[in-house]
Order: sequence, then structure tokens, then C-alpha cells
Amino acid sequence: MHIDYHTRLKTLQGYLIEENIDVAMITSPANVFYYTGFNSDPHERFMALIVDNRSQEITLFVPALDEEIAASESFVETIIPISDNENPFTKLKAKLGENISNFGLEMKEISMFQHNHLVTVFPNTSYEDIQQFINIQRMKKSKSEVAFSRKAVEVIEKVLAEGIKKVKVGMTELELTAELEYLMRKFGADGPSFSTIVLAGEKAALPHGVPGDRAFKNGDFLLIDMGVIKDGYCSDTTRTFIIGEATEKQKEIYDIVLQANEAGINSVKTGVPIKTFDVEARNVINKHGYEDYFNNRVGHGIGIEVHEEPSIHENNDQLAETGLLFTIEPGIYIPDYGGVRIEDEVYINEEGNVEVLTSFPKKLQVI
Amino acid sequence: MHIDYHTRLKTLQGYLIEENIDVAMITSPANVFYYTGFNSDPHERFMALIVDNRSQEITLFVPALDEEIAASESFVETIIPISDNENPFTKLKAKLGENISNFGLEMKEISMFQHNHLVTVFPNTSYEDIQQFINIQRMKKSKSEVAFSRKAVEVIEKVLAEGIKKVKVGMTELELTAELEYLMRKFGADGPSFSTIVLAGEKAALPHGVPGDRAFKNGDFLLIDMGVIKDGYCSDTTRTFIIGEATEKQKEIYDIVLQANEAGINSVKTGVPIKTFDVEARNVINKHGYEDYFNNRVGHGIGIEVHEEPSIHENNDQLAETGLLFTIEPGIYIPDYGGVRIEDEVYINEEGNVEVLTSFPKKLQVI
Repeated sequence: MHIDYHTRLKTLQGYLIEENIDVAMITSPANVFYYTGFNSDPHERFMALIVDNRSQEITLFVPALDEEIAASESFVETIIPISDNENPFTKLKAKLGENISNFGLEMKEISMFQHNHLVTVFPNTSYEDIQQFINIQRMKKSKSEVAFSRKAVEVIEKVLAEGIKKVKVGMTELELTAELEYLMRKFGADGPSFSTIVLAGEKAALPHGVPGDRAFKNGDFLLIDMGVIKDGYCSDTTRTFIIGEATEKQKEIYDIVLQANEAGINSVKTGVPIKTFDVEARNVINKHGYEDYFNNRVGHGIGIEVHEEPSIHENNDQLAETGLLFTIEPGIYIPDYGGVRIEDEVYINEEGNVEVLTSFPKKLQVI
Repeated sequence: MHIDYHTRLKTLQGYLIEENIDVAMITSPANVFYYTGFNSDPHERFMALIVDNRSQEITLFVPALDEEIAASESFVETIIPISDNENPFTKLKAKLGENISNFGLEMKEISMFQHNHLVTVFPNTSYEDIQQFINIQRMKKSKSEVAFSRKAVEVIEKVLAEGIKKVKVGMTELELTAELEYLMRKFGADGPSFSTIVLAGEKAALPHGVPGDRAFKNGDFLLIDMGVIKDGYCSDTTRTFIIGEATEKQKEIYDIVLQANEAGINSVKTGVPIKTFDVEARNVINKHGYEDYFNNRVGHGIGIEVHEEPSIHENNDQLAETGLLFTIEPGIYIPDYGGVRIEDEVYINEEGNVEVLTSFPKKLQVI
């Protein structure tokens, strides 16, 4: 599982030359990690990878207190620490000097506040968007990169298998959440990749519900949507169980969502618009009359971030190609009744074959 | 612990009138929570609180899948859901129409990407910064708001008290982290307020180190920096222990940091520049000859976010006033040797008196 950061940077440098961009500034922590191996959230402090296409120099500006870690975790040789009482834009100017015609920025990442500061120190510069190029570069994943995602999936599946053994009537959503997150750490995760979702009964109807003091009862849906970060890569899996005994209606809904999940996965291939995967899954739900109970996209790309490109929604005309890694997660959510979601991670490998990373059984489990 | 969202909004509306701002758009999840009680991270989806000063109408735009929760958690009556296949800026335009001269934005929050979309739908509008006003409004905390912070501190202190009972030689940083985060959930936290820091021995020299497989040994420093979110409010506490037996040098360093912590806290009062609190703590470290081993600010504001205003650094000339809640956390970090940090939360209450929220003992504990 070796990541070749130099090749990634070379690809970006090639793009900068093509677009006549003199200097690129990369501030998204996920992008800094992608290009350097340094994985750090500077919070409100300033961190930037500077790719200077005039001198071919690569520089990493980091908060002073992260200097030592940045030096050990990244291959970048020039690391410039910024203390809490220094102005990062002044230091940037001191390093880069004049003569920048085109400055490349991640437009979704750079705030207007930062932009105003840049314009102050580099007033005669035009600012170009490099976000989309980086997003598309990151979207195309190599086998060795997906090996990291696979590890993250392995961990979350172990957590789920162990975790559901602890479920019993009377336990609360929050208590199970605590057990699951403990298991994540125990099985080697760096932490959850997003806020763990454990929802019981009627609460399972909330696609983004928050675990609370709701205690498990017989006949409850139990929806568990969770993932981990492991070595900088995310996983994301949902399974829905039923506690005690399932009604016919619960079984019917579960079965429709399962069919939708499989229809979505079976439609995955290169060369077709990405919306196909959404539409195929959605059609199953619609034809059974549940179209009012599934109101969001069927999936999202995943990798260093838990949500990244591509977005699997019904208007995405982008053509599917090799290297995509994304979720397929249809659901039916009936207010005041409950809901079911079944979520897998799907990879279109470099040969164009479809691999489902998630292997946890999908047949309805009454626990 | 009642929060009066209407009064908060009225204060903002008064400012908008003064500044001739027609419409304010608030997209920071923390600020949306502050003004409405709706606490949600929309990730890459669009969420915005719109304060229309022309009609006095308050509108909350949320991702469609969060509509139900937004309606139940916030007092806002007009909630506009946005599906994954809709363009939020088009919906915004449809709601707000023409005739907006001045649009208020959080400039640190709005990306250039969002700004470009806004300019497309509202081309004849000027954009003003409302970030600083909101930051300052949020900085001044009432007693009832700090009651929430106090609960979050209580939880983390229980976690620390229980957690250190589990420490033994041979245990790893990650294993203790798992126990601590389990206890957070068990004691009612919504989750950690930031990535839990557990560092042993020489690793304690990294102010932002990440827990790993380092196993605890006799004579190790053990630095634990952690906090929780409880009902939307953060806590943040650091204590440093020594495992087994302490050397004279370890005791000396610990004692200097403790004196620095106390000097910082004792200097807190209204009417003096905020930098005073940094300088007073730092002077203790400097006079003992450790000035090269403390390179970051002495503290930060805390509340809905774990880092917010004010920043307690040696160049902050802002005058301290009532309502501030912040950390005092000096440290000494000696590369390849180890480090000590002692962090408390300090509140200048509405009467101008100083309350230290953190009550966990600070005397050196050898465990």
C-alpha cells in the first residue's frame, strides 16, 4: 500500500503549466494530505501547500506547533512554521515575492476573508480555480489507494459484527453508540469518519437522526450507519436490523430497499451517466409506491473524505469511468413509523470491473 | 438553562438596520445553532439562515433530509428544504427576489465558490462582512449559556477521574483513548469536542500529537488533552501525569508549568489587554529559561466551538470584558524528552468576577 505523492504532485504541476498558473495554494487539509502525506487539521490556524511553478519549489506552511510532525510525516523539504503571533499572508508574500500573474486556489475552500488578504499582498494577480482539477484527480483511485479504503471497511465490518451482539431490549441508542465507537478504537480505527448514527423504531425514519435516549423495544427497526477513518481513509456502511420480531410490512419495506440496493449496484459500469445508478435504485422504490419516502441522492464518493466526488444523484450526467469509489445507499423513510437503509461501497477498478468493498450480509437479520 | 434565541436574533437585526444591510445569510453551522437552536452539520450540502431585514422574515434553508429535525429543533417557522437535485442559489433567489442592495455574509465562512454563485443570482448587490459582529456577539456569554459549558466540563472531569484509574504500564495511548471516549458517551456526551490527545513519554512534547501504539512505561509523562460536546457546548481540559515515579527534572518542569497556569489565571480581569494573560503565564516559563519550549498562544475562547474568540496570544490588544470564556493552557515541550501542559477554562462572569470552570486537581499526580 505505497502511495506515490511525487506522481500526484507531478500531475498537478502539469496542469498548472497547461493553465499558465504560476503558484498554486492548497489549503484543504484533505488535499494537503493527498499531495504530501501530512494529515492534519489546523482548525482556524493557517496551513498551505504551495506549489511554485516558476521555481518548481514545494513549500508547506504549517502552524509552528505542528512543524515537527509535518517534517516527519511529509516528504516536503521546505517547511515554514507560522507562530500564533505572525501574519501568514505576510510570510507568504516574503516567500513568494512579486511576479505572480496567476494564482491557483481551491475556490470551494478559500474563504472571502482569505481571498481579501491575498488580494492585499498580491494586488496585481488574477486568481484561478484549481478545485475541480484536484477533485477529479482525487476521484480517480488506484488499486493501492483503495487498499486503504478496504482496510477501513474491514474495521467497520468487524465493529458491526461485534456490536450487534451487544444489542438488547432496553439498551438506548446512545449506549450502543458508545459500544460501537469503543470497538472502532479497539479494532485500530483513528476514529469515526462521521457522527455515528444509531436510530431505533420510528427514529429510523430520520436519514440524519442523532442517537439519543430512545431505548430499544421488541419490533423496532434498528438502523446503524457508521464508518471509521483508518490511516487517513474513510469507510461508510449502513445496515438495518429488526429487534425481536418483524411484521410483514417491515419485511416488505426491507425487501424493497434490498432490491433497490442490488439494482443500483448491478447497474454500475463505466461509460454510462452516473445518474443511472441512482435512477435504477430509485425505480425499484418508485414502482412499489414508496417514491414519497426516498428524497435524497442514492450515494456519494468516498476516500480521504467521507463525502467527496462523484455525487450519485439523478441529475448527474457525468460518465462513469474507472477508479470511482462511492456508496450506494437507497432507503425508505416513513415519518412516525420507521425506516430502512442499506449501504455498500462500490469500486470500479482500473480494469473497469466492479468490486463491492462491503461484505456484511444484507439478508434481513432479526436480532 | 434557557436560551433566548429571539433576543440573540434581535441583537443581530439591530446591527443589520444600523449597517443598512437588507439580508443576512448565515451558513456557519455553529452560528445557525446560536441563533435558532438547530444544531446540524450539513457537510457539503447547503444550509443557511436568512434574516430578511426588509420583511423581518426569518427563513431556514436546510437539506431536504433534515427538514423534519430542523422543524422540531428550531423555532423558525419558514423552513425551505433543498433536495440533492436542486440548486440552492436559484431557490434563494426565488425566495428573496430583487431589491437587495446590501447582503451580509460571514466572510470567513463563505467560500469564493459560494460568493461567485451569489454574484450570479444577485449581480447588483454589494456584499458586507457580518462575521466580526457575530463573533463578538457570541464571545460575550451569559450565565445561562455558560451553564451549558459547565455541564460539558463536568462530564470531561468525570471521564478523566474514571479514565486514569485504568492506566497501567504496557497499555497503549490508543487503548486509553478508546476507554476515555467510551466514558465520554457513558457520561452523556454527544461526542468528543476534538480529536482526543493521549501522549506518553517523549511524545508528550508534541502539542498536537496523535495517539498511537506507544505503550506506557514507568517514568513516562502522560499528557491527556480532551473535551466533549454536551448539548451543543464544548469543554477542553488538559492534565499531565507521571507514570510510576517522577524524576527531579520532571517535577521541576511540572512545577513551572503549574506556576505559569496559575499566573495566567490570576492575571485575568476586565479592562486590561487580553495579551496580559498570555504574557503573565509566559513570563514564568521564560524566567526559568524554558522560553524555547513554549511556542504557541496560551489559550483560546471556547463555547459552541472548541476554538472561538478571543484568542489569548501575546499580541492581542483587545480589552478583556465580562462574558469571556477561554482556556489558559501553558506548556513546556522538550523534543525527544517530553512535555507538560495544564489547561483550565476560565470565565469572566457578568459581574466581572473570575470563575475557573475546571476543578480537576492540578497538583502533580504520579499514577
